[in-house]
Amino acid sequence: MTIPNHVRKMVQSVRDKFELKPLQDRMLPSDDDFTTLRPVRKTTQASIAKYWARLMSDSPATDADKAAMLSGFDADTPDVFNGNIENFIGTVNVPVGIIGPLRINGLNAHGDYHVPMATTEAALVASYARGAYAATKAGGISTAMLYEGVIRSPAFVLGSLLDSGRFVEWIVNNVDDLKVESESTTRYGKLSSIEPMVDNNVVFLVCRYTTGDAAGQNMVTIATDALCRMIVDRCDVPIAHWYIEGNFSGDKKASFLGLVTGRGRKVSASVTLSDEVVEKALGTTVKDMLAYGQVANLGSHLSGQMGAQAHFANGLAALYIATGQDAACVAESAMGITRMEPRGDDLFCSVTMPNILVGSVGGGTGLPSQSAGLNVLGLKGEGKAAALAEVAAATCLCGEISIVAAIAAGDFTRAHESLARHR
Amino acid sequence: MTIPNHVRKMVQSVRDKFELKPLQDRMLPSDDDFTTLRPVRKTTQASIAKYWARLMSDSPATDADKAAMLSGFDADTPDVFNGNIENFIGTVNVPVGIIGPLRINGLNAHGDYHVPMATTEAALVASYARGAYAATKAGGISTAMLYEGVIRSPAFVLGSLLDSGRFVEWIVNNVDDLKVESESTTRYGKLSSIEPMVDNNVVFLVCRYTTGDAAGQNMVTIATDALCRMIVDRCDVPIAHWYIEGNFSGDKKASFLGLVTGRGRKVSASVTLSDEVVEKALGTTVKDMLAYGQVANLGSHLSGQMGAQAHFANGLAALYIATGQDAACVAESAMGITRMEPRGDDLFCSVTMPNILVGSVGGGTGLPSQSAGLNVLGLKGEGKAAALAEVAAATCLCGEISIVAAIAAGDFTRAHESLARHR
Amino acid sequence: MTIPNHVRKMVQSVRDKFELKPLQDRMLPSDDDFTTLRPVRKTTQASIAKYWARLMSDSPATDADKAAMLSGFDADTPDVFNGNIENFIGTVNVPVGIIGPLRINGLNAHGDYHVPMATTEAALVASYARGAYAATKAGGISTAMLYEGVIRSPAFVLGSLLDSGRFVEWIVNNVDDLKVESESTTRYGKLSSIEPMVDNNVVFLVCRYTTGDAAGQNMVTIATDALCRMIVDRCDVPIAHWYIEGNFSGDKKASFLGLVTGRGRKVSASVTLSDEVVEKALGTTVKDMLAYGQVANLGSHLSGQMGAQAHFANGLAALYIATGQDAACVAESAMGITRMEPRGDDLFCSVTMPNILVGSVGGGTGLPSQSAGLNVLGLKGEGKAAALAEVAAATCLCGEISIVAAIAAGDFTRAHESLARHR
Amino acid sequence: MTIPNHVRKMVQSVRDKFELKPLQDRMLPSDDDFTTLRPVRKTTQASIAKYWARLMSDSPATDADKAAMLSGFDADTPDVFNGNIENFIGTVNVPVGIIGPLRINGLNAHGDYHVPMATTEAALVASYARGAYAATKAGGISTAMLYEGVIRSPAFVLGSLLDSGRFVEWIVNNVDDLKVESESTTRYGKLSSIEPMVDNNVVFLVCRYTTGDAAGQNMVTIATDALCRMIVDRCDVPIAHWYIEGNFSGDKKASFLGLVTGRGRKVSASVTLSDEVVEKALGTTVKDMLAYGQVANLGSHLSGQMGAQAHFANGLAALYIATGQDAACVAESAMGITRMEPRGDDLFCSVTMPNILVGSVGGGTGLPSQSAGLNVLGLKGEGKAAALAEVAAATCLCGEISIVAAIAAGDFTRAHESLARHR
Repeated sequence: MTIPNHVRKMVQSVRDKFELKPLQDRMLPSDDDFTTLRPVRKTTQASIAKYWARLMSDSPATDADKAAMLSGFDADTPDVFNGNIENFIGTVNVPVGIIGPLRINGLNAHGDYHVPMATTEAALVASYARGAYAATKAGGISTAMLYEGVIRSPAFVLGSLLDSGRFVEWIVNNVDDLKVESESTTRYGKLSSIEPMVDNNVVFLVCRYTTGDAAGQNMVTIATDALCRMIVDRCDVPIAHWYIEGNFSGDKKASFLGLVTGRGRKVSASVTLSDEVVEKALGTTVKDMLAYGQVANLGSHLSGQMGAQAHFANGLAALYIATGQDAACVAESAMGITRMEPRGDDLFCSVTMPNILVGSVGGGTGLPSQSAGLNVLGLKGEGKAAALAEVAAATCLCGEISIVAAIAAGDFTRAHESLARHR
Repeated sequence: MTIPNHVRKMVQSVRDKFELKPLQDRMLPSDDDFTTLRPVRKTTQASIAKYWARLMSDSPATDADKAAMLSGFDADTPDVFNGNIENFIGTVNVPVGIIGPLRINGLNAHGDYHVPMATTEAALVASYARGAYAATKAGGISTAMLYEGVIRSPAFVLGSLLDSGRFVEWIVNNVDDLKVESESTTRYGKLSSIEPMVDNNVVFLVCRYTTGDAAGQNMVTIATDALCRMIVDRCDVPIAHWYIEGNFSGDKKASFLGLVTGRGRKVSASVTLSDEVVEKALGTTVKDMLAYGQVANLGSHLSGQMGAQAHFANGLAALYIATGQDAACVAESAMGITRMEPRGDDLFCSVTMPNILVGSVGGGTGLPSQSAGLNVLGLKGEGKAAALAEVAAATCLCGEISIVAAIAAGDFTRAHESLARHR
Repeated sequence: MTIPNHVRKMVQSVRDKFELKPLQDRMLPSDDDFTTLRPVRKTTQASIAKYWARLMSDSPATDADKAAMLSGFDADTPDVFNGNIENFIGTVNVPVGIIGPLRINGLNAHGDYHVPMATTEAALVASYARGAYAATKAGGISTAMLYEGVIRSPAFVLGSLLDSGRFVEWIVNNVDDLKVESESTTRYGKLSSIEPMVDNNVVFLVCRYTTGDAAGQNMVTIATDALCRMIVDRCDVPIAHWYIEGNFSGDKKASFLGLVTGRGRKVSASVTLSDEVVEKALGTTVKDMLAYGQVANLGSHLSGQMGAQAHFANGLAALYIATGQDAACVAESAMGITRMEPRGDDLFCSVTMPNILVGSVGGGTGLPSQSAGLNVLGLKGEGKAAALAEVAAATCLCGEISIVAAIAAGDFTRAHESLARHR
Repeated sequence: MTIPNHVRKMVQSVRDKFELKPLQDRMLPSDDDFTTLRPVRKTTQASIAKYWARLMSDSPATDADKAAMLSGFDADTPDVFNGNIENFIGTVNVPVGIIGPLRINGLNAHGDYHVPMATTEAALVASYARGAYAATKAGGISTAMLYEGVIRSPAFVLGSLLDSGRFVEWIVNNVDDLKVESESTTRYGKLSSIEPMVDNNVVFLVCRYTTGDAAGQNMVTIATDALCRMIVDRCDVPIAHWYIEGNFSGDKKASFLGLVTGRGRKVSASVTLSDEVVEKALGTTVKDMLAYGQVANLGSHLSGQMGAQAHFANGLAALYIATGQDAACVAESAMGITRMEPRGDDLFCSVTMPNILVGSVGGGTGLPSQSAGLNVLGLKGEGKAAALAEVAAATCLCGEISIVAAIAAGDFTRAHESLARHR
């Protein structure tokens, strides 16, 4: 059979459901009237009520659904979410489980942490908790933030290759002014470097900033906007177009730029587990974990992953949601390297994660339950972001240890079956 | 200066804070005593209370924090979350905004949808709402689910290259039995194909399943586990090791395997916007959007992204969280292609997303507020997953349209500044 | 310093050489007259003479240069190169070194081979020869061709997403006729599969062929062209454009499609070296090679390579040139996986290469010295291509063994210094 | 059918040829005696004769084969190849075609060039010649070398994450001495930067050099070796292992590091073709080329290529072989971006290639026929490497223009059929 089965089946399944003519009609644009829900920036009880009236008339949603979405906050102060959301209708309440204590012996994080993880996936918290227990039993995880630098990368379209050169020359000669201008927009952001990347008549400026204790995506946008406007005002090389972001920075998506140079905060975390800890806490052996590690590394290469790791995304998504980070950044953060190597009879385990995007201030960190998440960690407010990034990496290391042990031991399926059973 | 500045600064900042000896001590393993929070599968009011007592003694968390995390559900029935979480301490309440009506003329989704989006990032909902308005004004978005197939890829380690060949031969000869066995574990999962990938003595079996209306990650794990156990029982080629997952499937991570072959549900969505819609609804011109599109595509290549798109992750994370999907899957789902092309004076816009992981049953879809999210869409329960996947793609298309328009028009920074101002 | 040094220096170096105005003039288009060398398909002594007269008048080339380029063939029969080149002016004579005997215990290749390698890089042949000695000493290399399939991937632009579906349906329903039509153009090519890849209104058809003993790139082009023309003639879905190649097949370039699914011939090769062989033949230890292997694997991930290997390109380029293969295919072939693992005290080494593009007939294999290269291997003519692909992989394995040993032992630099010294 | 056809067929074809037992025997190591050809560094007529005696006894090679390999050089001076090859048995004579004049208006290259291309693939030279004609007719190609920097990236394995930090600190504090030491080994190489990349206890030092007019791979190896030995001698942080290359530099392989940061010389080249030139010289229209360009760009994304281009490898391999460059570097050089965009009625075309590895001195540039290749270009010797890199990019641009035109016009298959017909 020359055509893959799944193609044949998909064609058949559509054919079974639709004649051609009705299908064509179904997929055409329709000019039926519609009225859009009025955009709301400043939430009130009235605006919420109005939305729900509409939603309940247009969909199977019921009073119970409305009640469920309104249960997560004080009805008198829905405006607590202003500045974080528009067209607010309530909250979705994501269950939080706790792991720990997770001992971290880090450059920035130091102590025994209880890590809140928000997820709806059975077995996730249990698995990370097991990893945390093993790591803490082994004396804790060493961590270090190695680099920080959030990128914004505006693009400038010039008239020619030569003009690109002249434009870069102008940037080189005016970089000090540009730095002052960009930093004038922010108390915390500092411009670390501007690296021009030229593709003939298009120049991307890779602008890297440190962002204090904020994740900093908006901060660097605003700073870079100012920098760009100064260029446009002053530079004598004609600029055909400019864009605040040339889709180069890796914002909200995995990229090799991020893997190679880092974006956000880069953290490495490691622990050496004795054979005893592996056997007692993880129910397998160092040798079995190493044997699986070799195969898992091969799988990462052969399937074209960026870096090699098992499931950073699980730990990151759960921690990001629980602490008011931007969950969409999981797309760029869930990348890096997990290593497992023998050290005598023991097992060395490390993760290095070049793109952790977290803040201990700003974003969703000030919302009531998210703020609670940070307080449980003791990492809310100024001076805590580096430690939070180290906690994120250490947490992911726990997850890597636990899943590798589970797969090596043949426990993975059973754990998922049993913990999801109550549903 | 031969060493990059940021390296020099990072070294200096550590040096400023620490002498070597205290730093060495700080980063060493510590054998201080610790007691781990007892794992809890079945939540009770007592188990929650016990956790909080511990957390409040060990961290700056207060009664207010506890109250914030306990506000999102009925204190009498904390067990509603059993089967979705372990070590439960409460919920984090993520604000939900609504966009729409979003008109979809799809193979599976059809009608005007109100899409709930859970996020803490200002401007996100407003931006997607604007895109939805433009798309609906243009007659709506055509969508089609093109493919479905969740992968699990167990790995088998054999004794030699020759044994790999013999093993593959055995699989070929016994595939019908394997199919029956794997499907015996599930009412909905169907094995579509097994593709062996050989690297010398290691064979990965890329097993693809349709999963009915579930996202299906656990379903395919259990089905594949049964399949593997049958192989191990019956195959006469000696198997040194086997693993339920060879880190090949792309589960929870971006991979080129996923981009090329798809994982989960692959959906394409498109709309053609007239120049009038672009100007009135988006405040820019077709020509300007196309000019930026060219630069954005270049940026995606030069920074080593997988596919080319602006911010699928924003739409996906917000929709996944609001409807009880696995937010960690954003890491694999936020990948694909956005195209913008001229059609006469109009603008053709499409997204094709090969890795959407959603279900209308299972996972977190049954939890109260997540269930409400699905009900608002009218997409809860059996027979709705394909439509939900199409809604996900259509929503992402709205986000792409809006951000490209904003960047092309120079509005991007301003929108973020003004909507985040209330904080 | 906010701007990288190298940018500053490059700007300065241009500035030092040029004032702006002369530089602008220098880089502008020029409408000076020119006369092009007349294209020549059928070489004669006269056509060669005419070219050289022109070249010597326009460039510093001398009679000695002409003589050097005319030395590589019989002046009376320059037409021997017709059908392989146009505008022929002579040959460039690439020195060939020999390695071996290289013992191969393969599915297709079997025996002791002398492998000709054409290169101008000192140390390359010596290094591969050392690897071949070690491998043969260890009893030889096991090889197997695991897969074959050269891809051509035409693209069809349709009117809409729905039409893409209808187009795919037509392909599914007419695949048997398409197969017959495409195979009617070739004695050896067989169409294995057509896989449609849909991006909204664009459909790529990934057509895979076995190509007998030819590398087969032209064969699959011609076969696919016939297939496309039948589609265009018969298919009732309107086709806006079609292209023989949608830049999807990975022809002449590295791609993850090639890494994941293979293109050309996929071969795996392995050998287990005893500790004694490693020490005596390679001057290092199993332990040291494994320690380096771990670091080298890490480097491949962190720098964003496709797969993980050291220098397949060296072996492939040298073998391809020496045997009349298409040297440009090195770009796609030099990809895959090298593994080194302990087996007790011994060292297991393997390569798996998914994209070897070689033929024992066709292309440059019939030219006098290239034909000699194949004859030295005993692999010229029909029935030999699979063995030749296995020789290619085995040769690359020798190179991997030798370079890893050299770097592990700290010999790498010294070897290059001493062997390049005579120049 | 659940198993792909090609797997089933491959299994069957092996089964048809072999019973299990003979196949097992066939693939086992064999301890038959063998004698290796004695390694020869300094070629003599006697050493050549000895090799051929052996080859003719062990293989079907004949006197005619020997004569063909000995035809490419003066039998009296086989030592001309010493320092470029070991175990020399003759030359393989690759036919060279010429294209041009190719007008280049570049920062470094300037004038009308005749470009020698060595290949055995029919249609290649004709296609590039056509592109060169169109580009020259349009006034020539603007080029600029934008960056240069050959990387060597040694790896150091330390005892811990903390020691990695201490090691980096030592490098920062001693970088001036390291620069002096590395540059002491070379007249031309200059160390531009050292960038440490840390993965927990492993530190890669990405060392970038300018290499004068040499391609410079050996030069940077020797310079980096000196640098490493100084580190090992003086640094007080314990170093467990060090390696001259951590498989990070992208030497001889495609990598995203190379795409993002460049390796070797980065060149951009562009030309704007009038609609008249497109129609008369290329037989198609601007509109048709742009329409295909859009699809080709989509194909590059969907198949996971690095950058987006059609066939840089063809031009590079042919030019590298004809001018004595390292043909294996095609693997890393054949990467970058081709753009085609409308400029009014005209067609803007550019290539930007970040990894061109060429020298006008060193390597194979001094061999007789390769030296002739450079002389035909007028680019042999000191001060010419930057121009040569620009010629390489301009040549590739010609190839891109021609192939895009051919595919857009539907001529591609026919051209290959007719030009390969004489064989």
